[in-house]
Amino acid sequence: MTMANDATPVASRASVSESNRSRILQHLYHNGISSRAQIAKALDLTPAAITKITARLIEAGVIEETGDIEGSKNRRSIGLKLDTTRFHIIGIKFARSLVQIGVFDLCGNALGLENLPTVYDDTIDDTVAIIHRRVSELLADDPSIVAVGMAVPGPYLRNEGRTAVVSGMQGWRKINFIDEFSSAFRVPVFIEQDARSGALAHYLFDPAVHTEENLAYYLIGEGVGLGVIENGRLINGFLGAATEIGHISIDVNGRPCDCGNVGCLERYCSTPAIHDMLIDDGDVVRGAADMTHADAARALFVKAREGDERARDTVRRIGRYVGYGCLTIFNGFNPRNIIIGDIVAEAGPLLLDEVRRTVDERSIPEINDTTSITLSTLSADAAVSGAAAVAVTQFLERPSMFFDVS
Amino acid sequence: MTMANDATPVASRASVSESNRSRILQHLYHNGISSRAQIAKALDLTPAAITKITARLIEAGVIEETGDIEGSKNRRSIGLKLDTTRFHIIGIKFARSLVQIGVFDLCGNALGLENLPTVYDDTIDDTVAIIHRRVSELLADDPSIVAVGMAVPGPYLRNEGRTAVVSGMQGWRKINFIDEFSSAFRVPVFIEQDARSGALAHYLFDPAVHTEENLAYYLIGEGVGLGVIENGRLINGFLGAATEIGHISIDVNGRPCDCGNVGCLERYCSTPAIHDMLIDDGDVVRGAADMTHADAARALFVKAREGDERARDTVRRIGRYVGYGCLTIFNGFNPRNIIIGDIVAEAGPLLLDEVRRTVDERSIPEINDTTSITLSTLSADAAVSGAAAVAVTQFLERPSMFFDVS
Repeated sequence: MTMANDATPVASRASVSESNRSRILQHLYHNGISSRAQIAKALDLTPAAITKITARLIEAGVIEETGDIEGSKNRRSIGLKLDTTRFHIIGIKFARSLVQIGVFDLCGNALGLENLPTVYDDTIDDTVAIIHRRVSELLADDPSIVAVGMAVPGPYLRNEGRTAVVSGMQGWRKINFIDEFSSAFRVPVFIEQDARSGALAHYLFDPAVHTEENLAYYLIGEGVGLGVIENGRLINGFLGAATEIGHISIDVNGRPCDCGNVGCLERYCSTPAIHDMLIDDGDVVRGAADMTHADAARALFVKAREGDERARDTVRRIGRYVGYGCLTIFNGFNPRNIIIGDIVAEAGPLLLDEVRRTVDERSIPEINDTTSITLSTLSADAAVSGAAAVAVTQFLERPSMFFDVS
Repeated sequence: MTMANDATPVASRASVSESNRSRILQHLYHNGISSRAQIAKALDLTPAAITKITARLIEAGVIEETGDIEGSKNRRSIGLKLDTTRFHIIGIKFARSLVQIGVFDLCGNALGLENLPTVYDDTIDDTVAIIHRRVSELLADDPSIVAVGMAVPGPYLRNEGRTAVVSGMQGWRKINFIDEFSSAFRVPVFIEQDARSGALAHYLFDPAVHTEENLAYYLIGEGVGLGVIENGRLINGFLGAATEIGHISIDVNGRPCDCGNVGCLERYCSTPAIHDMLIDDGDVVRGAADMTHADAARALFVKAREGDERARDTVRRIGRYVGYGCLTIFNGFNPRNIIIGDIVAEAGPLLLDEVRRTVDERSIPEINDTTSITLSTLSADAAVSGAAAVAVTQFLERPSMFFDVS
């Protein structure tokens, strides 16, 4: 089976019948058990079309009939159901130094999760070999697994299958994800930039926001990224390199970045940038120089929570830069929700307060009044569940890739 | 007739039949005369559906049959045609101090164009009265006019009908465009932010780019704006305030802007910013202080073209800031084409060279290699034709608003 690396929620060239199949699946996914009449009404399809399409979906084992449900005018009618626990998805998240693999149901509930050994530039090949082995084992153990989703650092060139020439990702850059994984398994593999995967995770799995058609997931970790869902669709750009907020400059006279630009946001609030701050000012977190970026940042957040004033000042300083990024998101993408996630979100309310203060000072009032900024409330597995969300999106959008339904 | 202020190319809740009608119209608009069989094949619709829908469109006078055309396998078949010269559109562009009104055919060819008297904050009401009168006169004179499109400065709050609290637009801000114009005429009125209108104009009317599904129109005039078409659709944001590049900061420690933000791009390369530069350095353009912003900028461009070295340096300085904006567009939206338009584009190749130099220095190579940056080649009426493009888009997307075709 070939890999589809286009994770746009609606494939523009899908046939009309595939599109209707997908709309029915999505309706059942988002609304739960529904009668044929309810689906026909919601989707503006004829009863005949619904009957035909659902018959094929039932025959192929994608959906099933349930007992009678309450219909309109108190008539009883048969319900249709997409059992979201019946199909499983492997999600794999690639970060600079950490690869995580999880197995999820279609609603993003983790059935299993593991961290691979820390990745160094010279152990990339070993890590790739482990991924091949573990995925093959998982697939052999669990016949319910129907797809693999991967979340990779951006800018990810979707047609080429690799990350663009950018800071920090030297190691992973040599891996062509499409060549490496597309035909490796019995199930299809889908790849998306990590922050976009996070946006899909919130869109699909987060009860607080999943009905929102305009949301942004603002990933602040080893890198800084952004995924934006506009009117229910991801913004990708021509190569897949849009919404790369980590490389949008906040200061054209500022710090140089390996990407070639100057003053990239990533140079001010990613964990490597935070680590630099802590090494420069050795008294805030003792021994920071010997820690990983993530551990140093986490040590800072713990001290700040304990009330250490210098640690709290440092977190506020970081929050100010995260806030500058929010202002760029306001004026660039004007989403309804901005959800901040990944390691730096662990700084918690102290960070969020400073973000909001910065935004209150500098934003256009009408936008500020209508945009919520929150910290991700998906569990710690959110980042990995995003990788699964990439594949769930495809499952819902392109059923014919997974089942013989035509 | 009520106003639709949603200019998104495809209305998400349009009924299936309206959507198919629209797809047929768009096919004829973009591909010219086509047979029913060609349309059925291109759009994956059944011949029966095509026959039914086109019969209604012919009956309603939207499209017509032509003589035989060459079909496949050398069979002759009847052609269908959307006569783009038969329907006319009024386009109105609002800038800070200038309102222009034009009449266009569906391909953006100007049939007439006029500038209203210069607008000052205390003559806004007079201008509004003139617009009402002139549009009514034009509608009375030309029964082919089917819609009015308006292009207004952003950030434009599409559901409210007014421009957000931002610099310079103090005068126009008090006008609610929806209340003022939506029910004023015998034809529907559609409103869009000006740079988005420019993007639609290039998408529909510019032979150099109209097949591109990912393009950005970068408006640099009295304000700085951006319209982005991603996969054939405008990026709007929740309130319609997305892609407001003029208010994305390029320097968080830079010049304050009336919008509340600091270092807004608009503060460095709009005509008011250029005017400030020329007043500060009084020797480049003598008497600049007594000119309008636009006239001062144009006087600079003329001197630069004549070879004046100080004028050329000033244009290069402006080009550098325009280039910083392009870098933000690269990393924020990753379009295939960036088309620079409005007054500052008149600076020509000298400006464009500096923009490209800046981008070459600071961009991610893979993005730079695949993105074209050009100056708008639409005629001087481009800005106004953009207003018309807003209405043409609706004509193609929502035929049932214009004709009884159901």
